[in-house]
Amino acid sequence: MTLQQQGVSSSLGGASRPIDAALRQRAAAVIPGGMYGHLNMASMPADYPQFFESARGARVTDVDGREFVDLMCSWGPVLLGHHHPEVDEAVARQAALGDCLDGPSARMVELAERLTGVVTHAEWAMFQKNGTDATTLCCMIARAATGRRKILVAKGAYHGAAPWCTPVLSGTTAEDRANVVRYVYNDLESVREVLDDDVAAILVSPFRHDAGFDQEIVDPAFAKGLRDICDELGAALILDDVRCGMRLAFGGSWQPIGVEPDLSAWSKAIANGYPLAAVLGNDKFRKAATTLFTTGSFWFASVAMAASLATLDVLERDDSVGMMRRSGEVLRAGIAEQAERWGFEVLQTGPPQMPYMSFVGDQDHERAIEFAAGALRNGLFLHPRHNWFVSAALTSADLDQALAATDAAFGELRHSLG
Amino acid sequence: MTLQQQGVSSSLGGASRPIDAALRQRAAAVIPGGMYGHLNMASMPADYPQFFESARGARVTDVDGREFVDLMCSWGPVLLGHHHPEVDEAVARQAALGDCLDGPSARMVELAERLTGVVTHAEWAMFQKNGTDATTLCCMIARAATGRRKILVAKGAYHGAAPWCTPVLSGTTAEDRANVVRYVYNDLESVREVLDDDVAAILVSPFRHDAGFDQEIVDPAFAKGLRDICDELGAALILDDVRCGMRLAFGGSWQPIGVEPDLSAWSKAIANGYPLAAVLGNDKFRKAATTLFTTGSFWFASVAMAASLATLDVLERDDSVGMMRRSGEVLRAGIAEQAERWGFEVLQTGPPQMPYMSFVGDQDHERAIEFAAGALRNGLFLHPRHNWFVSAALTSADLDQALAATDAAFGELRHSLG
Repeated sequence: MTLQQQGVSSSLGGASRPIDAALRQRAAAVIPGGMYGHLNMASMPADYPQFFESARGARVTDVDGREFVDLMCSWGPVLLGHHHPEVDEAVARQAALGDCLDGPSARMVELAERLTGVVTHAEWAMFQKNGTDATTLCCMIARAATGRRKILVAKGAYHGAAPWCTPVLSGTTAEDRANVVRYVYNDLESVREVLDDDVAAILVSPFRHDAGFDQEIVDPAFAKGLRDICDELGAALILDDVRCGMRLAFGGSWQPIGVEPDLSAWSKAIANGYPLAAVLGNDKFRKAATTLFTTGSFWFASVAMAASLATLDVLERDDSVGMMRRSGEVLRAGIAEQAERWGFEVLQTGPPQMPYMSFVGDQDHERAIEFAAGALRNGLFLHPRHNWFVSAALTSADLDQALAATDAAFGELRHSLG
Repeated sequence: MTLQQQGVSSSLGGASRPIDAALRQRAAAVIPGGMYGHLNMASMPADYPQFFESARGARVTDVDGREFVDLMCSWGPVLLGHHHPEVDEAVARQAALGDCLDGPSARMVELAERLTGVVTHAEWAMFQKNGTDATTLCCMIARAATGRRKILVAKGAYHGAAPWCTPVLSGTTAEDRANVVRYVYNDLESVREVLDDDVAAILVSPFRHDAGFDQEIVDPAFAKGLRDICDELGAALILDDVRCGMRLAFGGSWQPIGVEPDLSAWSKAIANGYPLAAVLGNDKFRKAATTLFTTGSFWFASVAMAASLATLDVLERDDSVGMMRRSGEVLRAGIAEQAERWGFEVLQTGPPQMPYMSFVGDQDHERAIEFAAGALRNGLFLHPRHNWFVSAALTSADLDQALAATDAAFGELRHSLG
């Protein structure tokens, strides 16, 4: 029996996942803490894999050969599923020409035209590599345009991992955070309380998706109120669409409620997993954007832009947003029925495409963690303390397997509680 | 005659490069200023292309079909040449499995092991996407380790384009720059003058490669002096190897002079053009690195890591550093002979792999700009105000064409001066 077959044959712990265990041991020697960042599995149930081997459609396979239906989508980037044939084809075509050249290719212009055509508030585009690059650049443009310093940010909101915004203070200075001022999401009064003539921008997420908390859909009156305040103040309204962008609405996540930001930050799903970020803006902030020096060695590379163009084509043609919403609704309805049948009171919050489930009263996420471990044992990869991501690649068979896994997870949890 | 054939048939200006001209016009509508960052060709001679079509080996082709021998290598990333077969093969193998998964693949561990085996000061590795990510993270780790704030940086040095380091102040705040203190490269006394007990790190480039200035090789006594100062102070010595890394020495750019930094920042060439950055560190700074939250949506993706592993294999096996040095020496000797023959006094500075040429007394780079335009007309792509980059893909024919182009450029310059 090969190591991998042993991994497949059982999934009851580290001993049965020898390849992952060996890689974790090697990683501990050459990577601080063995891993870092949002994909560090150290605080996940023991059975979770740290290392993955491959993926296709809505299925991922870990290094020990366990295959899962994927409800995390690499924490967002995978929108149409892994190895989407049309994205792969566009990538192969561009890669055969070139990727990182002495300048951009025509793909950059095509993509800027396409995004400004699709996203209703956008009149220009700039491209980067990280979501953090995009949120940071939005703040810089707002500051350049207004000559002011302060950025208003919702308490608990995640806008990236640069010194000014990383949720952990280690390695940052007081000066890094000096111009970040906090308000409470969906609470206009809390915004008004911190206004002054040094406010360059209000930075806001499409909905409240802080990890570890029930999600909160934006109150349209709050969004409109922010727009009004920014107009009165001459400040920029910045929508951080990094996590939600192209999953909730094709025209930008606040397009359905009719509130147009001045600047928006994009990344994750816009190129179906290929590394790309973007800032989109309106003409009011175009000139300020020309005054900055911002760049990166790989920001002009063409393959990720070709992937994005193909992703947008498929999204529009197939109404992938609608597909994701419907799959999310199927999951939500199934989970609601299962929870009731197994006698659990759960809260399902957020848009169906980015579901979050919590057990009522489960303060330390103990039940959520046990539930997630149960789902994993039954072939479903999800997260106990972070919103999930639905892809457009989920088939009926995938959804059936996902719901069979959640049903089994509820059952095992009920059994363990006695 | 097609538009592209027209482009090939002549290269005397915008009118003869219709595809580039049309793309620039479209870009002006949807990209602020038409382009941004280090690949913005707005300030280059009019004949320079903004948009590229393809590349192979040491040759790049612009959108109008003009082919050039490439002495910019995408401003560094291309080390072994475009479409290096072994890198392409490793990329295809990994891409067929997966790139952006729910966690890293084994490639991440393999690459961390490989880099810590190759780079003499390194005992651990962390990966990112931009050079700026790597330099910023080095500063964060130094601050976390020391509990101090100040980073000492050489006047005029480029360490990225985040608010704390971008060379243009627009969009930045005083607070962003509050903890950056300047010294003069190769001047230990200037470092000693700004020391205090709030110094977290000294950040330094392997040699002085400020754009627009003659380059200055590091004085080994300066490098050793920085090492001593950091040891006395308990501060981190950070080597910014983003631009030079793997071009000057396989073990890190200061390995040949025997000075080991605590932390080093890498990007550009380490994956032969695939988007990757890395921080390497020693054990003294390992624990501090575990206290930060730093991450990115694409930082754990496997394709760029597979490209880096293949790049390192080829580099080591073929002594690509030696190949680049020898090609650079051929260029340098040829240019020296040509300059003398045409009656120009030029300065050639920096390592042969990263050449810089200036005309003595050419304060505003006027002659350099005309020379670069002449080189371009004759089939050689280089930069009038930034160091060039030699790749290991240059063949004898490429070198011959490059030197024929520089010879013609000198000749045309002599003619235009009368």
